[in-house]
Amino acid sequence: MIKFTERAPYAPVEYLYDVEEILYKGKSAFQDIMVIRNPYYGKMLILDDVVQITERDEFFYHEMLTHVVMHAHPNPKKVIVIGGGDGGVVREVLKHKTIEKVYFVEIDEEVINISKRFFPSVSSGVDDPRVEIKIMDGADFVAKRKAADIDAVIIDSTDIIGFARSLFTPEFFTSVKNCLTDPGLFVTHTESLHFHKDMVIEIQEALKNVFPLVDLYTAAIATYPGNWWAFAVASKGESPREIRNKGKIKAKYYSHEVHQQSFIPRGMYERLMKRELEW
Amino acid sequence: MIKFTERAPYAPVEYLYDVEEILYKGKSAFQDIMVIRNPYYGKMLILDDVVQITERDEFFYHEMLTHVVMHAHPNPKKVIVIGGGDGGVVREVLKHKTIEKVYFVEIDEEVINISKRFFPSVSSGVDDPRVEIKIMDGADFVAKRKAADIDAVIIDSTDIIGFARSLFTPEFFTSVKNCLTDPGLFVTHTESLHFHKDMVIEIQEALKNVFPLVDLYTAAIATYPGNWWAFAVASKGESPREIRNKGKIKAKYYSHEVHQQSFIPRGMYERLMKRELEW
Repeated sequence: MIKFTERAPYAPVEYLYDVEEILYKGKSAFQDIMVIRNPYYGKMLILDDVVQITERDEFFYHEMLTHVVMHAHPNPKKVIVIGGGDGGVVREVLKHKTIEKVYFVEIDEEVINISKRFFPSVSSGVDDPRVEIKIMDGADFVAKRKAADIDAVIIDSTDIIGFARSLFTPEFFTSVKNCLTDPGLFVTHTESLHFHKDMVIEIQEALKNVFPLVDLYTAAIATYPGNWWAFAVASKGESPREIRNKGKIKAKYYSHEVHQQSFIPRGMYERLMKRELEW
Repeated sequence: MIKFTERAPYAPVEYLYDVEEILYKGKSAFQDIMVIRNPYYGKMLILDDVVQITERDEFFYHEMLTHVVMHAHPNPKKVIVIGGGDGGVVREVLKHKTIEKVYFVEIDEEVINISKRFFPSVSSGVDDPRVEIKIMDGADFVAKRKAADIDAVIIDSTDIIGFARSLFTPEFFTSVKNCLTDPGLFVTHTESLHFHKDMVIEIQEALKNVFPLVDLYTAAIATYPGNWWAFAVASKGESPREIRNKGKIKAKYYSHEVHQQSFIPRGMYERLMKRELEW
């Protein structure tokens, strides 16, 4: 059997997947792009040798990245999605009937094209008339906005290295805050609470310097090494633990119960931020 | 770099670990036993090519397997631990001051010996005077007990195949129930909710045929493929979600908050058991 060995940055373990077929192998201006077929996961999108999504389990990550902020906001209308060229987050955002506009900002157009070709069930929302695609750096897009009219900014970046680094600076977090409405929220993944605890803490701290309220929730994602995936969420004061949006959506994993249970217990959060957790 | 490729049963991904040193490689009457040193995890115990524990992260699994039942019981005194020859569960059980007796039933004495030699911080409780070691099949040990005087039965088995299978039969579950006191509890791991959902459901169903109350909680364990690790817990009627034991223990991950949050939300549990969860 042909094998694909994943080389995820900072992970102390490599993942090895069976490859039934290499469906695509190319190079964009930003990264190597590969699509393979695995007997269990179906099609898998791989950027720079790191698994981004699989047909079988992409919904765990996309639902958890999207629906927590979309339910903590009472009535989300305008959303910015940065990264996630596969379109999974855009698809989830559009499940909310209140949505009028999605700015879909992706630096690498090739990822959008490859996803439309190989992952139509993921990229299904990309051509929706409410979606405006911007091929550019997300940090630049947010910095240039004048009005504070955005209800949620969602970062779906690759691992926090290389060109994705511009989405994790104090300057960027300030631009995000400036473009948000008052109940507006910001969310980003921050790697694994098992493997990258220090990074999880540092991003919480950096966000606290900008936003009045910052919190942390997690989900178990089997295809991201470390698996205990951490999401940082920030607001101008309203707690993202509360569900304000009562609109019904169809989801495979997300539910109001999952929303509330996904947040790190208060006691553990305090110990984490005091760097008292020993792992 | 020398690599160790893990061959976990039923996992659709293989894990690859760097090997700094092979500290032990042998064969018992039951299995291949290996101890390696990895730069991140420290020493790792490997049985039949499957990672059992690592120095760095063993506490997640051992604390979560042990302390949920030990806190749901108001006053645990007598406990049976089956498997877990490394001694990690015994160490956690002994943290509870109420404990008078631990029957530590392990089929493979060699695992206890290897753990004493290479993992002294894990096997530290094994020679405690309250611990009685029984080298035998756990199913036989439980079947032969006459009195209903045990407060908790904890299964720390290898993957649910081969000789560990005897610990997942209706006959065994009935023997366990018969040896438990009235507020007594039973707990076992049941593999990954990502990769082995059907097995998780089947063990819940098998336990429900024997016990009045069966429930499910999870923890993210980075070194077990699938990571979203499921634990089945059964009682004669009292809910294991409630904390009755107010004795204080020192733990790295477990806390009362973690205890309560680790249980699968009710809505998801219902969908799981109706086989409505699509993954």
